[in-house]
Amino acid sequence: MTDPSWRESDLHDRFRDHGLEVPDSVVIPSGDDMAMLRPEAFGDGILIAADQVVVGRHVVEDADPEAIGRKAVLRNLSDVAAMAARPVATVATATLDPTRSRAWAERLHAGLHRTAREFEAPLVGGDLAIHDRPHGPTVVSVTILATPANDDGRVLTRRGAKVGDLLAVTGRLGGSLEPGGGGRHLDFPPRVGVGIGLEKVLGADLHAMIDLSDGLGLDARRLATASELAIRIDVDRVPITQGKDWRAAVEDGEDYELLFATSAAPPSEIDGVPVTVIGEFIAGSHGRVDLLGLEHPQRIDGMGWDHTTPRSSGREES
Amino acid sequence: MTDPSWRESDLHDRFRDHGLEVPDSVVIPSGDDMAMLRPEAFGDGILIAADQVVVGRHVVEDADPEAIGRKAVLRNLSDVAAMAARPVATVATATLDPTRSRAWAERLHAGLHRTAREFEAPLVGGDLAIHDRPHGPTVVSVTILATPANDDGRVLTRRGAKVGDLLAVTGRLGGSLEPGGGGRHLDFPPRVGVGIGLEKVLGADLHAMIDLSDGLGLDARRLATASELAIRIDVDRVPITQGKDWRAAVEDGEDYELLFATSAAPPSEIDGVPVTVIGEFIAGSHGRVDLLGLEHPQRIDGMGWDHTTPRSSGREES
Repeated sequence: MTDPSWRESDLHDRFRDHGLEVPDSVVIPSGDDMAMLRPEAFGDGILIAADQVVVGRHVVEDADPEAIGRKAVLRNLSDVAAMAARPVATVATATLDPTRSRAWAERLHAGLHRTAREFEAPLVGGDLAIHDRPHGPTVVSVTILATPANDDGRVLTRRGAKVGDLLAVTGRLGGSLEPGGGGRHLDFPPRVGVGIGLEKVLGADLHAMIDLSDGLGLDARRLATASELAIRIDVDRVPITQGKDWRAAVEDGEDYELLFATSAAPPSEIDGVPVTVIGEFIAGSHGRVDLLGLEHPQRIDGMGWDHTTPRSSGREES
Repeated sequence: MTDPSWRESDLHDRFRDHGLEVPDSVVIPSGDDMAMLRPEAFGDGILIAADQVVVGRHVVEDADPEAIGRKAVLRNLSDVAAMAARPVATVATATLDPTRSRAWAERLHAGLHRTAREFEAPLVGGDLAIHDRPHGPTVVSVTILATPANDDGRVLTRRGAKVGDLLAVTGRLGGSLEPGGGGRHLDFPPRVGVGIGLEKVLGADLHAMIDLSDGLGLDARRLATASELAIRIDVDRVPITQGKDWRAAVEDGEDYELLFATSAAPPSEIDGVPVTVIGEFIAGSHGRVDLLGLEHPQRIDGMGWDHTTPRSSGREES
């Protein structure tokens, strides 16, 4: 079943060759049993997260392989942004369905490698496997290492919002699946610089932060739950992508913007990205999120994208 | 298609609860956008590797889910052993086929979590996804962080063997798929303590090391290639699992033993695990490995398990 013209071991060698273009922070590059990084590449903490892209689930079946690799790294960079951290290195594993060609696999790797290098988080290791189900799913898993951007080691978790804190968001929300709308689903600028900038400007007034991957409803709930508070959002203040409605802003997911709690008014923009106050933290049922300003107030903490709905055309909630 | 009684987000919560039982080295546990570890948990280097288990490829379809999680962590620990390093933390991602039950997913997670904790490398993060192909493969990817066990930061790579170095191996080789033979395919004691012990005993005389995952043929080639030398192995000295022949020792793979280059005679055992000298490094075609002592010398550097052969009954080379 496997394309006889290439074997996993060939691509392993290619992974290794690519890995050699690495900065001084890498003592042992990709190609050995493990890679090694200098501790000096990290400050007061070593941050780690892992995320994956499942073809047919997170991206359509015929997506460009380089774009799939890119998205797998970008999703992780969005987590780095949400901590106000700076990326340091990545590793990746991929399981391909056996109908993929060697050229496809190489382009996937190029997408991983180039995107990781672009954001100064070189790809230092990985593994490739091929499964035995033709047209079964292709899965790409990326782990990212990061370090606190702030010299004193401070990072932002989801926890720490206080009653009366403002809830603010970067960019515009909704329409991530449509090129004419937000179109951020496949490619987007991760808000790494914005996250670091917010921490620098707001300092100790910035209390909690998360990136919007599953939609304003579910992700606001996570912030509220972690801080043991409720949230009230004013629909008229939500920055919605042109041509979309509040429901798209709440449910579409994959905005990859930052949502945060602050006790001081945030700047109106950072690095050219708009920042908008959309609501506030209140005492109440932990994790409850209400959207006000509609004909009837709407409870939205159950609304968002659960990742079990394929990313293709429709996205009816199950 | 998905079992309606559970959603990814439920299991995310479970992943988080488990993650809370973590040592002091973990500043921010699983459940936020990223986990954070103290730099003091690491010595003079931060080692990282990623590996995966594809159900139907690396383990049979109906394997116990806890054993699958365990194997995914053990494979990574074997890489840590090969560097003479000490594990510090793990993260894991899993993509399940939609026919798996919530109980199955929880047992997979328990296997990951318990094994990681057993080896003092707590599971600090992860992601779970469900794909849309019933009976498509389930994929588990694990990334492990480690630190040099030696106070001066020394680790062992595949490179550094010299002409005249002895080639030695731990344990016995072959029969990893058979419970009556080696049986190490699904569960095995990773040689972490043995790797550290070898580095301690042999010191600077220990020149290069690798773990045997793909078989003596392919893995000896990797050691030889990295050191730009050739290898000669004496078949009579190879410690073969009882009831198996030299071909099984060379080709079966998944021995998860250590293969190393040393300029001093190694001890005959470490931690109760036998250590055997089986050959030597010579000048010659880089990566060439010859097996002597048979009726006709056999070149074995192309022999081993390529991972495109499913791990089930047969294992004919393609």
